[in-house]
Amino acid sequence: MADETQSAACPCTQQELLEHWQGHRRLTRKVIEAFPEDQLFAFSIGGMRPFGVLVHEFLGMALPVANQVASGTWGDTAATKPTDKASILRLWDEHTGKIAAIFPAIPAERFHARIKIYDQWEVSGMEAIQYAVDNEIHHRGQGYVYLRALGIEPPMFYDRA
Amino acid sequence: MADETQSAACPCTQQELLEHWQGHRRLTRKVIEAFPEDQLFAFSIGGMRPFGVLVHEFLGMALPVANQVASGTWGDTAATKPTDKASILRLWDEHTGKIAAIFPAIPAERFHARIKIYDQWEVSGMEAIQYAVDNEIHHRGQGYVYLRALGIEPPMFYDRA
Repeated sequence: MADETQSAACPCTQQELLEHWQGHRRLTRKVIEAFPEDQLFAFSIGGMRPFGVLVHEFLGMALPVANQVASGTWGDTAATKPTDKASILRLWDEHTGKIAAIFPAIPAERFHARIKIYDQWEVSGMEAIQYAVDNEIHHRGQGYVYLRALGIEPPMFYDRA
Repeated sequence: MADETQSAACPCTQQELLEHWQGHRRLTRKVIEAFPEDQLFAFSIGGMRPFGVLVHEFLGMALPVANQVASGTWGDTAATKPTDKASILRLWDEHTGKIAAIFPAIPAERFHARIKIYDQWEVSGMEAIQYAVDNEIHHRGQGYVYLRALGIEPPMFYDRA
């Protein structure tokens, strides 16, 4: 982890950013778990995508973004799109482990370097990570409404354990 | 703005964090605008709070968190709870301006200092800001479902202009 001694001069350290991201991944995992298997790719409101399709989007973004920031290689994972909950959770955990493994070795300057995501948008490494996390929070919030509409209590928003 | 020269050693600068936050506030403002006046405090799915009530939560959190990080003063704003769109947007803009005014002067070490939010939870300054932003993204995502269910196209998630 580069330059931890500089932490007082910046809003968050690389380690804190990773922990923040992983906390959100743990919450999203709980939301996936909370969905009834038969509603994950079926239930929808207002013509929006079912939650399982949104999870495919998360899976196709998080690890590729981490890869791109770390090494400039997108490493597209979107080809793998399981539709049963157990396989989704297994893939989720696999990606979580890979993100945890590559993140600490990212040189600090990569967060400020311009990178390309989806082979299309040029943003800084930090902006790419923020977009992936924010997009997951945004669509997961949508999943909360689906769960409530299904009569299911979603996990507490602050439960990141 | 303290220590901008250190930026290469940390994932994001104080200025970038503010810009990220304000971008989200601009998007939330568009979502408020998109709601029909008569649905802002009426429409709900699955027993969840109407979007206007969620906006009251945002208004009672963002500026107080910025105040608390800046100066250790919560400066509760929750007492003001307008229920018409024009007044809500006016208050929103007022808080946006205040956040922009106080943020650059926050000493960098305040992001790492332990502070209390809602006079209850002890977190770092950065965690408090992240929580406020994430909570807004989360509930705004809920607002997107309400809009879609009402047959209204919400703004694009990446539109932060």
